[in-house]
Amino acid sequence: MHGNREMVGEMTGKHPVNKNRRVLVTNVKILPMTGPHDFIPEGFLVIEGQHIREVGSGKPSLVRENGQIIDGKGKLVMPGFVNAHTHAAMTLMRGYADDLPLMEWLQNKIEPFECNLTGQDVYWGTMLGIAEMIKSGTTTFADMYIFMDDVARAVEETGIRAVLCRGMNGVGPNAEKALRESRDLASKWQGKADGRLKIMLGPHAPYTCPPPYLRRVMDLASELGLDMHTHLSETMAEVETIKKEYGKTPVAMFAEAGLFDHRVVAAHCVHLTDEDIETLAKNKVGVVHNPQSNMKLGSGIARVTELMAAGVTVALGTDGAASNNNLDMFEEARTAALLQKARKMDPRVITAYQALEMATVNGARVLGLDQEIGCIKPGMKADIILIDVDQPHFHPPHNLVAHLAYSAQASDVDTVIIDGKVVMQNRQLLSLNERTVIEEAGRVALRLVEGGL
Amino acid sequence: MHGNREMVGEMTGKHPVNKNRRVLVTNVKILPMTGPHDFIPEGFLVIEGQHIREVGSGKPSLVRENGQIIDGKGKLVMPGFVNAHTHAAMTLMRGYADDLPLMEWLQNKIEPFECNLTGQDVYWGTMLGIAEMIKSGTTTFADMYIFMDDVARAVEETGIRAVLCRGMNGVGPNAEKALRESRDLASKWQGKADGRLKIMLGPHAPYTCPPPYLRRVMDLASELGLDMHTHLSETMAEVETIKKEYGKTPVAMFAEAGLFDHRVVAAHCVHLTDEDIETLAKNKVGVVHNPQSNMKLGSGIARVTELMAAGVTVALGTDGAASNNNLDMFEEARTAALLQKARKMDPRVITAYQALEMATVNGARVLGLDQEIGCIKPGMKADIILIDVDQPHFHPPHNLVAHLAYSAQASDVDTVIIDGKVVMQNRQLLSLNERTVIEEAGRVALRLVEGGL
Ligand SMILES: [Zn+2]
Ligand SMILES: [Zn+2]
Repeated sequence: MHGNREMVGEMTGKHPVNKNRRVLVTNVKILPMTGPHDFIPEGFLVIEGQHIREVGSGKPSLVRENGQIIDGKGKLVMPGFVNAHTHAAMTLMRGYADDLPLMEWLQNKIEPFECNLTGQDVYWGTMLGIAEMIKSGTTTFADMYIFMDDVARAVEETGIRAVLCRGMNGVGPNAEKALRESRDLASKWQGKADGRLKIMLGPHAPYTCPPPYLRRVMDLASELGLDMHTHLSETMAEVETIKKEYGKTPVAMFAEAGLFDHRVVAAHCVHLTDEDIETLAKNKVGVVHNPQSNMKLGSGIARVTELMAAGVTVALGTDGAASNNNLDMFEEARTAALLQKARKMDPRVITAYQALEMATVNGARVLGLDQEIGCIKPGMKADIILIDVDQPHFHPPHNLVAHLAYSAQASDVDTVIIDGKVVMQNRQLLSLNERTVIEEAGRVALRLVEGGL
Repeated sequence: MHGNREMVGEMTGKHPVNKNRRVLVTNVKILPMTGPHDFIPEGFLVIEGQHIREVGSGKPSLVRENGQIIDGKGKLVMPGFVNAHTHAAMTLMRGYADDLPLMEWLQNKIEPFECNLTGQDVYWGTMLGIAEMIKSGTTTFADMYIFMDDVARAVEETGIRAVLCRGMNGVGPNAEKALRESRDLASKWQGKADGRLKIMLGPHAPYTCPPPYLRRVMDLASELGLDMHTHLSETMAEVETIKKEYGKTPVAMFAEAGLFDHRVVAAHCVHLTDEDIETLAKNKVGVVHNPQSNMKLGSGIARVTELMAAGVTVALGTDGAASNNNLDMFEEARTAALLQKARKMDPRVITAYQALEMATVNGARVLGLDQEIGCIKPGMKADIILIDVDQPHFHPPHNLVAHLAYSAQASDVDTVIIDGKVVMQNRQLLSLNERTVIEEAGRVALRLVEGGL
């Protein structure tokens, strides 16, 4: 274990960025996600250090020295996906609890399992999640969980980009600990791993964070200058609980507590009134839609088209693998589009391009990273993926945007570059040992299922 | 083109079955789909000629001679998927018309495109569809289209199994031709390609087949002993049209016309009354649910749980690639389960196992093939797929059925055997030339988009 971790550290995050490292991608189709009509049928991309330096059609003007050259023939390059709400270490519980009523799922399966987790367990679960995310084209993920120091360590080692928060439950036994650990997490990891780490605060949800606790979270946010990541209006039961206790919706409860004076990214937002939607829009709350998790847990279908019409930025997340059960953003984008078309009985809502936008640009925006990532243009961080578009399900090539949204699959991702570094090529993970990760995560999961430490 | 077709003919359908050909799959996990608790964690499978001869745990008792041995280490074998409703050649229109209102989609895009199709075009479109289907684990498909002679030719050559019907529109200019061609199709292809071909009649839909025409279709069905494949209650507009014209629902209209005195497989069945559901159950009509197509076209969400509760067998189909946009049965099974959980707001409905059943056993049943295919046991035709379950998204291995239903992707299919013949191994298609198919289908699509013959 230790040997392996040193090895991967050497390959990625543990060594400082080489500002002069160059990667040249040639002969490639480019979907920059800078606008619905922006597409280069054959072009090139120059990466220097962490950044995209040049994007163009045809061939680059000057031949570069000391650079890695990637032949993009038959491939399309686009921004990596932003999984804007997940719990990566919950891959440990993939397939452990399915088709169960929500409370049985949570109380009899998930919570007892989580009870016995150690930091090292979370490390291996996160590593498994990162392996899966890189293999399916995700280059940034926003995570809320426990033992976040170990999550940060996995991020640093593997070279992925992440926005991390320690889940904060104000009514549980760890309310104080969560505040303390959040402060520590920020002081230790904010901006670290060459700037690939951003720390937020993670007030878990309205029903676990009563206003006095929220006040303390907000004070900490102000003191440390941190944004916040929360769950909001996920189920009807939550809405009813909050209404009963506070006489208002969860959105109104958060708004009146002052939470939205901060930058907030809110996962789910399934059950919303028209007033809730106005409140989210007015306060520029970023919403993360998790269609597959909401479907699988029977939570309902979010009013995504209404949120978008009100001007809310809606990003996409997989949620944890215990309720999805994979971390595949292609599926999430497809399901988001199809589900709204079904809900509105209107095939025009959420176009193919909009679905891809939700999975890239909008994710960057809700996480406050849109000056760095989410689209391909000079000056942006080089978080990009190459997709093999020369397979039966991408033909005929009438419309590659439609194919990506409606026909592609995770395994079509051939090469992944994050922060200028190639972390996967020809589907081989370069910054972690896939076999070791699978085995260690399997060992951890087996021990936890058998009960205890 | 011609050289290639001869080549593939030699490899598969054009030569008679060798009854003594043996394939042995060893060291493999077996999900036979014979019951929710049937699973062999490590076993073997013996295929002789077209059939499965032995299924067991551990190692086979005798060593076989002259056999091909496939090492199943790290893999799971299950029955191939049955795509019970599609229009394979519509791959030619993949991505050609998305996010449009239904009538604009149909009248301005699909119909003008189809107007100019030739038999050879349909051949290449079908070949592209078959390439994609085999690569995603489908071993049988039920197809309704035009130029079915060319579809049958593609089936014969590629070694896939299919249930074919010529779409019959009684109000269009080809009403008579459709009857004639259906008769010819049956006489030429029924039971051919080593028994891999079954022919049905294809009365297109209630709104294209008024009762007098239906009468002629049913007479032909009785004369030739053919089952029928139709579209039924796909959209609210269809239901309204039929109600206006006949004063009853499409299901009642078909029932009273006597259609259900025959064995009928009905695609879609989205908009149903409680009485419709009773009628379908009482008459043992097989229903094919097409969740992604229904979502994408904004048609609505079928009442699948109610159909199942009434005892109707519900299978799955992708519909054509112009409204899906791929032919991926993993997605269809997943979406079927998730969509009903969302619709009923109940995570218990459509379990992982039921979703896989819909994609295999139920497909065989609605097509009248359940004595031959749909599950793995001695005596059944050897239509099986090997899935690489040793990848991050299949770990930890808490529950492989859940992983297959909720986490797997098409590209996880490693090997496909149909009718005892290996048609894909290590993701290499053996019974068709993938490159030629992609190129020829691309040429056809380009010509059609540019308008005309
Ligand atoms: Zn969550
Ligand atoms: Zn159809």
